[in-house]
Amino acid sequence: MSKLPKTIVIIGIGLIGASIAMSLKSRLGREIKIIGVSKNLENSQRLQKLGLIDQSIENLSLIPDTTELIIISTPINVITKIISELVSRNKASTSIMDVGSIKGEILSYAEKFGKKINFLGTHPMAGSEKQGHENADPNLFMNKPWVICKSNNTNKKTLDLVENVIKIMGAKPIFMNVIDHDQTITWASHMSLILTSILTCTAAKKSYWEKIEKAASTGFRDTTRLASQNPKMKKDIVAFNKTNIIQALNDLQKEITLFQNLLEKGNDSEILGYFSLSKKLRDDWIKKYFMA
Amino acid sequence: MSKLPKTIVIIGIGLIGASIAMSLKSRLGREIKIIGVSKNLENSQRLQKLGLIDQSIENLSLIPDTTELIIISTPINVITKIISELVSRNKASTSIMDVGSIKGEILSYAEKFGKKINFLGTHPMAGSEKQGHENADPNLFMNKPWVICKSNNTNKKTLDLVENVIKIMGAKPIFMNVIDHDQTITWASHMSLILTSILTCTAAKKSYWEKIEKAASTGFRDTTRLASQNPKMKKDIVAFNKTNIIQALNDLQKEITLFQNLLEKGNDSEILGYFSLSKKLRDDWIKKYFMA
Repeated sequence: MSKLPKTIVIIGIGLIGASIAMSLKSRLGREIKIIGVSKNLENSQRLQKLGLIDQSIENLSLIPDTTELIIISTPINVITKIISELVSRNKASTSIMDVGSIKGEILSYAEKFGKKINFLGTHPMAGSEKQGHENADPNLFMNKPWVICKSNNTNKKTLDLVENVIKIMGAKPIFMNVIDHDQTITWASHMSLILTSILTCTAAKKSYWEKIEKAASTGFRDTTRLASQNPKMKKDIVAFNKTNIIQALNDLQKEITLFQNLLEKGNDSEILGYFSLSKKLRDDWIKKYFMA
Repeated sequence: MSKLPKTIVIIGIGLIGASIAMSLKSRLGREIKIIGVSKNLENSQRLQKLGLIDQSIENLSLIPDTTELIIISTPINVITKIISELVSRNKASTSIMDVGSIKGEILSYAEKFGKKINFLGTHPMAGSEKQGHENADPNLFMNKPWVICKSNNTNKKTLDLVENVIKIMGAKPIFMNVIDHDQTITWASHMSLILTSILTCTAAKKSYWEKIEKAASTGFRDTTRLASQNPKMKKDIVAFNKTNIIQALNDLQKEITLFQNLLEKGNDSEILGYFSLSKKLRDDWIKKYFMA
C-alpha cells in the first residue's frame, strides 16, 4: 500500500480543514492520528468529541516532532505567516502543504526558505457556500480535482505523501506549475466567485429589486450560488490574484460588448450560434468531467 | 372547490407543455381531459401512452369547441402566429393563456383582437437545462413563482380559471403589469441565461481552456448551468426583450467597472464590504423565498 502519514496536523478547522479531518478519519480510522490546530480550540474539540480528530491544540509550538505532514488550511492571508512560524520552530523534517485558492505568492514566499522547509502548494477544487466546520463533509473531495503545484523546496517524500493523502480522500490530483495555476483558476473558479456577486449587486440596485426577488427562481438561485460564499475568502482571493482578475474582468467586458454588438445587429443565426456554442462548450465539459 | 377546466388543450409538448400535462393529470386524474397539440405528434402520443394526455392532435383545427382553456407552450417566436390562428378559427369563448418568457410583444399582439379573444399572458418561473418532454417533471412548478400579466382582453372567467390551474400545480401566482414583467424578468431570469453563456465563451477562448476544464469544479458547474439551456429559446428571448437586455448589459458593464476600480484601489475593507453585501442580498433572498 502507498505510504500514508501516521501523524498529521491540520492547522485551521474551517470547512476545508474539518472536511479533510473527516475524510481521512472516516477512511483510515486508527491508522492515522489527526491533530487539529485552531485559534478557537472549540472548533477542533467539537470534531474531537465526534472521534474525527485525535487531539486538539491551539498553538503551533505544541506540534509534536513526530508529525509527518502539516496541512495549512487557514484563510489565505495568514498562510505565509504560518509558514514563517513553522520554519522558525525548526520543523524542517516535516512535510508541509497548504490548501489556499491561490498559489503564486505562497510558493514564492515558501521558496525563500530553501531546504529549511519541505513545502508543496495545493488547491482542492471543492467548497460550499456554507462555511465553517459545521458544514464539513467527509466526501467533499470525492471525484473533485485537487491541484498540486511543486515549489523548488518540494522533496520527493513530500510529493508522494501529499499525493497519497489526496488520493485516499477520493480526489483527483492535477499537476500544474504555479503560473498556470493562478491563471487557470482565475477562470475555473475566481471569476464565478466574483461575477455572481456583481450580478447580485447590479440586480439589487434596481428600484424594482423586490419584484425581482419575487419572480426569481431556480435559475437565479444556481447562477448566483457563489454570491453567498465567504466574503473574507473572496476578499483575500482578489487581493492575492489581482493582476489575473483585473485582466479577466477586462476580457469579460470585451466579450459582453461583443455580445451586445451581436444583439444590436440582430442577426438571429449569429445569436443562435453564440448560444449553441456556449451550450456545446459546457455540455462537453460536463460530459468529460462530471459524467465520466 | 375552485373552478377548474374539464377540458384543456396544451399546444406544444416540450419541457413546459409536457410538465403541465403531467402536473395536472397526476393531480386531477379523470377530472380533467388533456388534449395535446404537437407538430411532432409522437411527443404528445408518448405522453398519451403513459396516461398523462387523453388525446393527441396535430392541428389547431381539431381543437374541440368544448375546450375551456388553451395553453400555448410553444417557442416564443410562434406564439403570436398561434394566437392569430386561434382567433381566425373562432375560439372566442375559450380562455387562452401562454407561458412564454416575455410578455410585452405577445400581449400587445393579443390586445389587437379585443373581445374576439379571452387572453391572459403568464410566465412560469421554472425550467431546466434539459430540454424536451423527455425531461418533463410533474413537480416542476411546485413552490415556483408563476407570473400572471392581465391584458385588456382578459375576462374574469379566464383569470379565475388560470389562477386555479396554476395553484393546483403547486405554483405561486404573482400578478405584474406587462412592463414590470419584462423589466423584472430581465434580471430575475434573462441576465442569468445570457451571462452564463458569456462567461463560458470567454473562458473557452483562453489558450489554456483545457486546463480550465480540468481544474473547474462544482462552482463553475453551478454558475454556468444555464449556459446549457436551449439556445433557440435564448435566441427568442433576447430578440423579444432586446431593449431591456441591452440596458441591463450596460448596467452590468458599469458595475464591473465599479468593481474593477475597487480592486485597483485595493482597499480591503471596501472589497470585503462589496462581497459581504452580495452575500447578504442573496442569503436574504434565499431565506425569504426558498426556505419559507
